[in-house]
Amino acid sequence: MTTVHAYAATAPNGSLEPFEYQLGPIGPEDVDISVDSCGICHSDLSMLENAWGISAYPFVPGHEVSGRVSAVGEMVTHVQVGDRVGLGWHAGYCMTCDECLGGHHNMCSKAEQTIVGRHGGFADRVRARAASVFKLPAGIDAGEAGPLLCGGITVFNPMMQFGLPPTGRVGIIGIGGLGHLALQFARAWGCEVTAFTSSESKTQQALAMGAHDTLNSRDPNAIAGAARRFDLLLSTVNVPLDWSAYLATLKPRGRLHLLGVQVEPLELSQFPMLMGQLSVSSSPVGSPLAIRRMLEFAARHQIAPVTEHFRMEQVNDAMEHLRAGKARYRIVLDRH
Amino acid sequence: MTTVHAYAATAPNGSLEPFEYQLGPIGPEDVDISVDSCGICHSDLSMLENAWGISAYPFVPGHEVSGRVSAVGEMVTHVQVGDRVGLGWHAGYCMTCDECLGGHHNMCSKAEQTIVGRHGGFADRVRARAASVFKLPAGIDAGEAGPLLCGGITVFNPMMQFGLPPTGRVGIIGIGGLGHLALQFARAWGCEVTAFTSSESKTQQALAMGAHDTLNSRDPNAIAGAARRFDLLLSTVNVPLDWSAYLATLKPRGRLHLLGVQVEPLELSQFPMLMGQLSVSSSPVGSPLAIRRMLEFAARHQIAPVTEHFRMEQVNDAMEHLRAGKARYRIVLDRH
Repeated sequence: MTTVHAYAATAPNGSLEPFEYQLGPIGPEDVDISVDSCGICHSDLSMLENAWGISAYPFVPGHEVSGRVSAVGEMVTHVQVGDRVGLGWHAGYCMTCDECLGGHHNMCSKAEQTIVGRHGGFADRVRARAASVFKLPAGIDAGEAGPLLCGGITVFNPMMQFGLPPTGRVGIIGIGGLGHLALQFARAWGCEVTAFTSSESKTQQALAMGAHDTLNSRDPNAIAGAARRFDLLLSTVNVPLDWSAYLATLKPRGRLHLLGVQVEPLELSQFPMLMGQLSVSSSPVGSPLAIRRMLEFAARHQIAPVTEHFRMEQVNDAMEHLRAGKARYRIVLDRH
Repeated sequence: MTTVHAYAATAPNGSLEPFEYQLGPIGPEDVDISVDSCGICHSDLSMLENAWGISAYPFVPGHEVSGRVSAVGEMVTHVQVGDRVGLGWHAGYCMTCDECLGGHHNMCSKAEQTIVGRHGGFADRVRARAASVFKLPAGIDAGEAGPLLCGGITVFNPMMQFGLPPTGRVGIIGIGGLGHLALQFARAWGCEVTAFTSSESKTQQALAMGAHDTLNSRDPNAIAGAARRFDLLLSTVNVPLDWSAYLATLKPRGRLHLLGVQVEPLELSQFPMLMGQLSVSSSPVGSPLAIRRMLEFAARHQIAPVTEHFRMEQVNDAMEHLRAGKARYRIVLDRH
């Protein structure tokens, strides 16, 4: 038995306080990770607030884990004790459903989620199943790896899933935790990259992070001026925008892909979709293979989140910083 | 100069009366077609009513033309006088924009539409540009070819565009002019085919036309019982359904593709789209190459519309039959 020292909330939106729990005997496919650092994702906040109605308390957030393997089950072969590893949104897959067998484990209906019905990475240790634990390639800075495991894969995945060609034009809507990584990935992918932001301060930063140009996301004229321009729009915002206006900025056969979670129903005009054979879609993080490719790609292209670091015991200050919309661009909690 | 004898409405929703107009000298890329028959599509009715605000009067409907080439311009090489040919929604393309050069002429923003700003096929003759005129393969019955040129290509195109595998499961929502062709194409494509219909009489007919089974499109329990079943849903209805309920019937990475034109905004829940990486999309008819492939495929698989024939001078009776929702399943006007 291992005692885990974590930070947990005992009620929706409660403060995160020291909390201990026991890990049972390690299972044959389990990997225990000694956490070095953990990114904070907006969905940690949504889960803390029980915004999606699926949270259980005591609740330990954290699903952007960077650490070292501290123990492995007898069937585990791809990592060994001491390896630098990462863990993201999923903590395990059934491995035998159509989706798992097809390489789309992230759509497994029995996938375990690191902070849903389990305790996450705001802790000194976290346990996950083998296929969800990723060795960090040389060239990935372990202290900055966490945010790649959820934010990074979420924005990288659609480029891979939909076969985005490097000749494409990509618009990134919302330059925050996800968006600032999307700019970097899309730039390295070879595409022409446009950042949509309404923040003056982010405009220059977006250009520095990889955007070829920027458009004011709250200026209808700017959006109207970009008619038939993009092959792919990746939205990272979680509020309703005038999606029909954005559809008009897509080239024929273009795609509006929504990565932020909008709780209200989407409202879309069909006519522009029909005329241009447009698609509207969404997706959850990425498959294990996509995560592996993303880490290799990030290492090769020196893609890393822009982070602010807090010590793990300052977790409530860090959450408040995120809640206030002040994170530039991703917060990482460090244990050391 | 050639005098064309057509049927035209002089005002929105007016009756179609004999109308003559002159064709000017034939242009180098023009093809003149002596019309033998012309299908009636629901969009002829929408255009007659000016439902989309783009109709001009006198208005000659008809964009599912089957006939013989009566004259060709000097640059025309792929058809010659006397050839059996078809003409659909588009009557010409710019041929040099990105979309045309890329083989997606049906998304050319300068494409000419057979009944928008031009006179259509409810006539003894119609003129179109070369790339929009299709030689009918042997094995296609000229008298039944018309409806393939618009209704047929509209439902065939997404199967080709999105690379539907023959191992896929397809649901066809709405069994009418488009839907009854979709059943046949999807069956011949090799897929498992389900017809969604609320009509008792159409249930047996849908099975006869290629459906492996049917579901009642107005029974929420039937729809809920089909969870995670389909790779592709093709909707041919032009009224809002509970799209979020239909999204739940898609397998992960599935697609809801809307071919009927819904004027009200679509309302979609994003959460199931995100969890399953679902796409929602729409498309207009198909490219010239897709039409050519569709005709070959229809000939090889003996796919043909189920039609009711009216003589062209009975055009107003035929339109009334369509308006009343009585067409089973496509109406064709014959000149002979």
